[in-house]
Amino acid sequence: MSKTIVKAYAAVAADKPLEPYEFELPELGPEQVDIQVAYCGICHSDYSMIHNDWGFTRYPFVPGHEVIGTVIAAGEMARGVKVGDQVGLGWFAGSCMHCLHCLSGEHNLCRQNEYTIVGRNGGFADKVRCHWAWATPIPAAVDSSKAGPLLCGGITVFHPLLELNIRPTHRVGVIGIGGLGHLALQFLNKWGCEVTAFTTSPDKAAEAMAMGAHSVVNSKDENSMAAIAGSLDMILNTTDANLPWPAYMKALAPGGILHTVGMVPDPIPASAGALIGSQLSVSGSPLGSPATTRRMIEFCARHKIEPITEQFDLRDVNDALEHFAAGKARYRLVLKM
Amino acid sequence: MSKTIVKAYAAVAADKPLEPYEFELPELGPEQVDIQVAYCGICHSDYSMIHNDWGFTRYPFVPGHEVIGTVIAAGEMARGVKVGDQVGLGWFAGSCMHCLHCLSGEHNLCRQNEYTIVGRNGGFADKVRCHWAWATPIPAAVDSSKAGPLLCGGITVFHPLLELNIRPTHRVGVIGIGGLGHLALQFLNKWGCEVTAFTTSPDKAAEAMAMGAHSVVNSKDENSMAAIAGSLDMILNTTDANLPWPAYMKALAPGGILHTVGMVPDPIPASAGALIGSQLSVSGSPLGSPATTRRMIEFCARHKIEPITEQFDLRDVNDALEHFAAGKARYRLVLKM
Repeated sequence: MSKTIVKAYAAVAADKPLEPYEFELPELGPEQVDIQVAYCGICHSDYSMIHNDWGFTRYPFVPGHEVIGTVIAAGEMARGVKVGDQVGLGWFAGSCMHCLHCLSGEHNLCRQNEYTIVGRNGGFADKVRCHWAWATPIPAAVDSSKAGPLLCGGITVFHPLLELNIRPTHRVGVIGIGGLGHLALQFLNKWGCEVTAFTTSPDKAAEAMAMGAHSVVNSKDENSMAAIAGSLDMILNTTDANLPWPAYMKALAPGGILHTVGMVPDPIPASAGALIGSQLSVSGSPLGSPATTRRMIEFCARHKIEPITEQFDLRDVNDALEHFAAGKARYRLVLKM
Repeated sequence: MSKTIVKAYAAVAADKPLEPYEFELPELGPEQVDIQVAYCGICHSDYSMIHNDWGFTRYPFVPGHEVIGTVIAAGEMARGVKVGDQVGLGWFAGSCMHCLHCLSGEHNLCRQNEYTIVGRNGGFADKVRCHWAWATPIPAAVDSSKAGPLLCGGITVFHPLLELNIRPTHRVGVIGIGGLGHLALQFLNKWGCEVTAFTTSPDKAAEAMAMGAHSVVNSKDENSMAAIAGSLDMILNTTDANLPWPAYMKALAPGGILHTVGMVPDPIPASAGALIGSQLSVSGSPLGSPATTRRMIEFCARHKIEPITEQFDLRDVNDALEHFAAGKARYRLVLKM
């Protein structure tokens, strides 16, 4: 066997810039594929892991889990993708394939899942490895230079629309017009829904409308919030902030759902009176399954949905991270290898 | 028109025993029916209303919203029930019939609903009135002396099984083995589910098994709770108590639902980490629709499901309320007119 050497950028400590880092991959497993990385998005969780915000980062650490690239090696048992295929890789890099969740097509709920950047190296590199099931084919109709963020940010907000059976007749609000929110607005518009964007940045209103919102509500304005009371079938929170949840719950229609994909610090207070009186629910979800990811890519190709990105060369990764940390990303950053 | 005089028992103040009370009903509306009450259950909300716990009781106040009786008058536009039919009446006594919820068959979510004991008089009486849609036909196969509690306690725990699409392959836990919980255990057992009863009263374990539980877990025992971690698809809370919710959420399987029909005093803390990591939801629901109530009655008749009741004569209503307040009801009290 020839050695597989990976040229990457790694964090060597929580407070250090990323630096070039080479390592060797072990022998390819029979169900694994290696991807030659062309582009890799930057996600908030890359940033959290670089800085060991969650306490389990192991250094040197190679971030990156919004990969677009080409399969350059495939194990003998790999299915559905072959050398030369363009694929995407997101947060999940492997599943047990035999638990009830995997066998039900819910690999995203598998308790043995391998995460692309936890305990292994990610896509800020020329190569990255995964199980074949998590290598999502990317058709030529999708712009590969922009598609990376779909594999994490995109699927995070697409999955709940299928999972929660959101219908085109529903009215849906999106909290936060950022990396995830700007994709949620596009998805929901093409889903056929009436779409409300919540933002506290009035300067983002015109952009939100251009992305697919039918109306924009400033959630700091009590009158605006009161005006939409009882109207929304779903509110999708894409922010990581503690928000005035009771006000949002009042905006829900009977049977409505407050759904978070943002890692809100404090528990969301779910009052029994509101839950029972209006048959509400408060829920959350991780990323979607391989099947849902493929359906999302197909939906994006059909409707010309793509992330709005800013591109940096991999060698400028520290500039990109600084731009990200300053809150300047509009709306998602992509590294070019 | 002949006058319609109702002979009832009413509370005249929050701290007084109920006493005999007569009043006259206005002319019957075209869509209304009058029911000659045969039996009426006692529900916790009757007790709360008698004591003005929610601050909107108007005295004299006639409780009672778990009625079984016979239609004795029907307006000219009443549909589906006629004079002489045996019917049941629960918490809801009227809906607007034209909002999107009513037109969708979700009359229980109508924002204009009339409540049987709010701003009007209930079923601790010889007669009670309602809109025809909320007069649920009760077939002869159902024991009318015991069926009353199905119309409130029963439908409260039956409705979420349909609404949340609970399947026979699911594993479901029930918190609280009382008026609602003892019906939930019976429903879920016949639903085909694996049923776990949560109780802090070990003396209720054998009873819970007899009602349909396949296992009983003492929720105060940390080891027992740890042993069922990640196993339940739904936990149905029937209690009005603040409970150790994080421990219950740990008992949920990926995709699981913590659902309350009990009016828990403090908000249930829904942590984003748990919601997102395991795709959980925290939800609640009111009583079911007319259609769901009819389906419940059919399900009860098919499976011989009935409340376990203790019967008092209406004239002994104060003894019954005292028995209830002492926590001695096993499991639901019914007044005989």
